[in-house]
Amino acid sequence: MINDEFYMSLAIKKAWEFQILTYPNPAVGCAVLDAGGRLLSVATHKKAGFLHAEPSAILLALCQKCEAFLSNFLREYHAALGVKFENAAELENADLEPNFTYEYILQNHGDMLKGAKAYVTLEPCAHRGKTPPCAELLRQLKFAEVVIARGDENAVASGGAHILQSGGVAVKFDVLRQQADDLVEPFLAWQRGNFSFFKLALSANGVAVGTAQSKIISNLASRTHSHRLRSAAELLVIGGATVRADRPRLDTRLIEGGKNPNVMIYSRECEFDASILLFGVAGRSVRVTSDINEAFAPRLTMFEGGENALKTLDERVKWLLLYRSSELLDAPAVRLNLKLKPLFHGELDGDVYGWYKFERDLG
Amino acid sequence: MINDEFYMSLAIKKAWEFQILTYPNPAVGCAVLDAGGRLLSVATHKKAGFLHAEPSAILLALCQKCEAFLSNFLREYHAALGVKFENAAELENADLEPNFTYEYILQNHGDMLKGAKAYVTLEPCAHRGKTPPCAELLRQLKFAEVVIARGDENAVASGGAHILQSGGVAVKFDVLRQQADDLVEPFLAWQRGNFSFFKLALSANGVAVGTAQSKIISNLASRTHSHRLRSAAELLVIGGATVRADRPRLDTRLIEGGKNPNVMIYSRECEFDASILLFGVAGRSVRVTSDINEAFAPRLTMFEGGENALKTLDERVKWLLLYRSSELLDAPAVRLNLKLKPLFHGELDGDVYGWYKFERDLG
Repeated sequence: MINDEFYMSLAIKKAWEFQILTYPNPAVGCAVLDAGGRLLSVATHKKAGFLHAEPSAILLALCQKCEAFLSNFLREYHAALGVKFENAAELENADLEPNFTYEYILQNHGDMLKGAKAYVTLEPCAHRGKTPPCAELLRQLKFAEVVIARGDENAVASGGAHILQSGGVAVKFDVLRQQADDLVEPFLAWQRGNFSFFKLALSANGVAVGTAQSKIISNLASRTHSHRLRSAAELLVIGGATVRADRPRLDTRLIEGGKNPNVMIYSRECEFDASILLFGVAGRSVRVTSDINEAFAPRLTMFEGGENALKTLDERVKWLLLYRSSELLDAPAVRLNLKLKPLFHGELDGDVYGWYKFERDLG
Repeated sequence: MINDEFYMSLAIKKAWEFQILTYPNPAVGCAVLDAGGRLLSVATHKKAGFLHAEPSAILLALCQKCEAFLSNFLREYHAALGVKFENAAELENADLEPNFTYEYILQNHGDMLKGAKAYVTLEPCAHRGKTPPCAELLRQLKFAEVVIARGDENAVASGGAHILQSGGVAVKFDVLRQQADDLVEPFLAWQRGNFSFFKLALSANGVAVGTAQSKIISNLASRTHSHRLRSAAELLVIGGATVRADRPRLDTRLIEGGKNPNVMIYSRECEFDASILLFGVAGRSVRVTSDINEAFAPRLTMFEGGENALKTLDERVKWLLLYRSSELLDAPAVRLNLKLKPLFHGELDGDVYGWYKFERDLG
């Protein structure tokens, strides 16, 4: 069925591709249909400080509607900010400066989205932070309806629906609400204190890095994705045994401009071979501690490790990110009993990855 | 980008959901957009003898366009065939009788799809087999354009593009051609002789059925899907050791009206405990043989088994279907070296399944 749920699911899937990477902002997706019901764009917020999901989708929608709008925007963006994109595809993948783009849309939309419909996974923001308010933009462009998967309880950003309704925009709530709740769970958690997840990379038959002959299990796309997550995290936690056995670098060399996260080595013994690569990475602090509580002091913590780390994992670690390659290996797989609730599955160049919630009470 | 590739990928994904199940027909998907570019439907051929992908998508598109068309069709279908559906969602999931539906569309479309656009994963058929020709329907409804992922080399069914073009319908070929080639590979293979695939169900960490304490690894949705595949297959092949160890039933009890496939037990020893469940299933023949060539005599063969069967698998078995649950188990996983090329990943109520091509020459 091509209905509200169909379009919202496009927005939700798109947002999941940037889950965690938007820290400290929530992952948000948006789809825009014109007044005739033609799908124009599906976009997502990609990185804090850059364009939100709604103006991203609106920009792409205007470019889809009108070639002249696209070529003018590319030229003006280049002139104003010195960054050149060749086409709409490059625009779609770019982290766009929010203020210029927002104003450009406001000045040049030419009522092309009058009567349009937007699907947003989270209530559009009402406040002027690093970026101007999304609800205001939707109102000024005269959208007919905005479908919202869940309201925003964030006291600072909320009120978007009110702005829309007071401007005559119809608002519908709670389409795919449960899925939108899952999507926003990390954001709610790090706002209250801390969100922690565990990253595990396995072969198709469950063999972990370090167990197989090769140290590499995942493909380049999966490893690049995990480097993006490291760059977003405030702290990377790893067990002392893994550090000694794998001698990892734990950096973000696969991405441009990545931040190498601070590392906490969870260990009772403080002596480590200083030539282990992670100690030589610039711009980070490494702390060895046997107090697991320190892992939960920052707002976003990423855990890495294998079977033993998983077996003794603190229950404050809420989600598992599982990468799976397309290869079976002749080596022992990880062994433990663990039930998971699947939240999202995606593909990375043939590898599969999944976000799961730990279901510790079951089994 | 919302472009031809986007809509074709919707059609391709939909078709993969019924891969193999359409035997002896190919898996085909179709998406329909109205003249204004509004997406109206995405549909697939589900089962041989029932409605093809194109009339399925056209029917759903007309229902989406016009509520009166939907209610009239539901009433007339009930009157003519005695089968009652309550709404469009039930219609979407139904196996529809092709001739009545085709004629109903021809008589009642009211030019609502004039100027519309269709995306089809395989060239629309041109011949009147169990169902009337799809190309003719698209032409008579005055579609403006049909985008085709790959031409049909089947001498009987081909010629659809010619019918379309001679009726003034624009035809575009080869959008997502490689993906469409993968999709149609089983169909091409069983037309030439035989297509064989191997089914394997693993826990999230690679533990196979029979290894764990429980005999059940996959969830109900995955097991139901595998029963549908068994029902489609001409022959189910399983090793003698697996039969002795697991004592399986190998039937299709989870689906309604399923056909219990004939079983070939690949074994040098002919003695089996007759109380093993598979011998007691009605309507099937069971043959024990040590000649693996017999497995490839029928047109569609499904292999089941575990690690040992995979290790010694005949290279005429082309694809692997891998179900993976959302649970890690404390038991040994399957162990062997095997490279796979991923073709499609889908979800079944939280389990993930993937179709892979064996890449035997690598590694």
